[in-house]
Amino acid sequence: MPTVTVTRHVHFNAAHRLHNPSLSDEENRRIFGPCNNPNFHGHNYELEVAVEGEVDPVTGFVANLDEVKRIVEQHVVSYLDHKNLNLDVSEFRALNPTTENLVVVIWRLLEGRLPSRLARLVLWETPRNCVVYEGG
Amino acid sequence: MPTVTVTRHVHFNAAHRLHNPSLSDEENRRIFGPCNNPNFHGHNYELEVAVEGEVDPVTGFVANLDEVKRIVEQHVVSYLDHKNLNLDVSEFRALNPTTENLVVVIWRLLEGRLPSRLARLVLWETPRNCVVYEGG
Amino acid sequence: MPTVTVTRHVHFNAAHRLHNPSLSDEENRRIFGPCNNPNFHGHNYELEVAVEGEVDPVTGFVANLDEVKRIVEQHVVSYLDHKNLNLDVSEFRALNPTTENLVVVIWRLLEGRLPSRLARLVLWETPRNCVVYEGG
Amino acid sequence: MPTVTVTRHVHFNAAHRLHNPSLSDEENRRIFGPCNNPNFHGHNYELEVAVEGEVDPVTGFVANLDEVKRIVEQHVVSYLDHKNLNLDVSEFRALNPTTENLVVVIWRLLEGRLPSRLARLVLWETPRNCVVYEGG
Amino acid sequence: MPTVTVTRHVHFNAAHRLHNPSLSDEENRRIFGPCNNPNFHGHNYELEVAVEGEVDPVTGFVANLDEVKRIVEQHVVSYLDHKNLNLDVSEFRALNPTTENLVVVIWRLLEGRLPSRLARLVLWETPRNCVVYEGG
Amino acid sequence: MPTVTVTRHVHFNAAHRLHNPSLSDEENRRIFGPCNNPNFHGHNYELEVAVEGEVDPVTGFVANLDEVKRIVEQHVVSYLDHKNLNLDVSEFRALNPTTENLVVVIWRLLEGRLPSRLARLVLWETPRNCVVYEGG
Repeated sequence: MPTVTVTRHVHFNAAHRLHNPSLSDEENRRIFGPCNNPNFHGHNYELEVAVEGEVDPVTGFVANLDEVKRIVEQHVVSYLDHKNLNLDVSEFRALNPTTENLVVVIWRLLEGRLPSRLARLVLWETPRNCVVYEGG
Repeated sequence: MPTVTVTRHVHFNAAHRLHNPSLSDEENRRIFGPCNNPNFHGHNYELEVAVEGEVDPVTGFVANLDEVKRIVEQHVVSYLDHKNLNLDVSEFRALNPTTENLVVVIWRLLEGRLPSRLARLVLWETPRNCVVYEGG
Repeated sequence: MPTVTVTRHVHFNAAHRLHNPSLSDEENRRIFGPCNNPNFHGHNYELEVAVEGEVDPVTGFVANLDEVKRIVEQHVVSYLDHKNLNLDVSEFRALNPTTENLVVVIWRLLEGRLPSRLARLVLWETPRNCVVYEGG
Repeated sequence: MPTVTVTRHVHFNAAHRLHNPSLSDEENRRIFGPCNNPNFHGHNYELEVAVEGEVDPVTGFVANLDEVKRIVEQHVVSYLDHKNLNLDVSEFRALNPTTENLVVVIWRLLEGRLPSRLARLVLWETPRNCVVYEGG
Repeated sequence: MPTVTVTRHVHFNAAHRLHNPSLSDEENRRIFGPCNNPNFHGHNYELEVAVEGEVDPVTGFVANLDEVKRIVEQHVVSYLDHKNLNLDVSEFRALNPTTENLVVVIWRLLEGRLPSRLARLVLWETPRNCVVYEGG
Repeated sequence: MPTVTVTRHVHFNAAHRLHNPSLSDEENRRIFGPCNNPNFHGHNYELEVAVEGEVDPVTGFVANLDEVKRIVEQHVVSYLDHKNLNLDVSEFRALNPTTENLVVVIWRLLEGRLPSRLARLVLWETPRNCVVYEGG
């Protein structure tokens, strides 16, 4: 059977602040600029979840997208949506909530829970920038 | 000369929390749901600024869009971008930062400063919802 | 208080066939072209629902968008999504399911049910064409 | 019968230069900046053509969009696509090809030729700016 | 010469029903949900066709996109547009018209017919989900 | 540390003409069609620049996107924006400015200048066609 990648898009929004407490305030401001605002700012994140596998000859599906959607809603969207990443999400207690770190955190939230192999995540922080992670 | 509307799009992102201190905590949670998160959440706001006027026979412009852009960047984007609306923006000290209130605040920041008559603002909070204000 | 328009976007998909039984088969094919296919074709419809009103000084809302969304889901999306407009939707038993007729049907499904005055519907049949209806 | 607006989107691309020969070279550079480049630059224009009328009880159409599309292709797209507005389009021999002037020229190319009343043109010069003209 | 991938986007719309006659009606409803509606529903499909090859030193093209477009229109769009996949398209007489199966069918319609090597197809069923097939 | 790809989008617009002086005028017209217009036409180009690397444990960045943006603005956007590719850009004195050749030129402008490894460029000539180059 052919191998196809199936992608589902979801969105959530969150507040965050880019800050590394092991750096001085001045270094934090220099590296992170306005993203270092101590009062936080925020984004509408768009997430693309791609799973890969052989097409099932009975259903014609690689994966049932309703099931994929339910798992992503349960383990990612409900966990991150309308949250402050720094204050409300335990993974970021000692980790800077950059888009790079966020996409890796989301990978770990999803890995092993989806009905097919997780192949690729694309995470948009704004309509002008995104990160791509394939688990490497 | 014909009357034409000219629109410029800009974006900014910000954190906020929907909360009215004159309501009980329970009422705030009931009305605003996850938007009432005390730790804030955030959005990528997309703003469309429309000015209207007769086409100038010398320039062929209703308004020089570079000038419109500079004024919007100076009075709106630099004032709101990467900010916490509740904590960093004085207009929201006693005003709930809903999209409706935010579009009216932006109107007042721009009114009388643009080279042509401000005709209409469209403010997107997410790709799925926006508000429109024409100054009424 | 200022008057603001608030817009919520939803989507649904459906099959339909453009056909008027009072016309001959040849006239139907000439007027409706491939949209007259007796086996139906279909679309992803995108619907923008705009309500208008004064901003409530207590909530800062014209309308609670979660409530708007729930009403639109209940009365429009669940009624039309994954349906055959000609066969499954009673309004189209004797009415051709063009985008124009569909937007008027949706207006009647929503009118009087929303927490603020319904101001405008925009219905996209494809990313290249839409209809606008303001109830006139 | 209800009155509905029907919109069709088309695109074309063209080169142009903003320049008014009655101004000095210095004034032209100051007003038009890089758009004054004597070697021209160019855009992908997106045009939205909106016609308005009562829904025809026989067809369920305000206007047959295939007919609207054919007329817009014939009188606008084929006339402007892959052209140099300054050199190839007679309307701009003595008129500066700003977006404002272009939308008015397109209105005159379409007015009276469409099967329903031309209600509104929206012309995007870039994804970040557009003009709107309603014939006034 | 450098190897570049060139992508052309086209769209078509169609009706379909997800159903496997070897399963019981109850199993079909459980697996396919509202997509199992016996009266069909439909979608606007967006298709991205990517071909890959070395840049031709004479033309500067990997492939003439007008030729790619003509071949895709002839072999895919005209074959699927405004059709009922289950009833009108022979490949789906005994094959469930899921997006996964559809992208593989489209691959076979195009393979060997394009002026450069077919590298990748992306097929959007809705703006929120797509499949990717690279021929494996 | 995980390896992540980070993408930044920018845009610029330019005029061009597709033409190979070693071919006859007739061959040029046959191969390039309206793109061969001697008076030029133009496009809004959208460029996606993807860099790849390990996430830095101190900053949480693969690359500081503000730095990526500054380098792309300096070496690509300011060099190409509002230009005539054939007349104003030295790389195209003897090279046909197709999208394929343009993406390779942009690669060479950026290679070795970015803070992380350049992984991939996507260049959109119109919303319906793009090229992808990974340096091969």
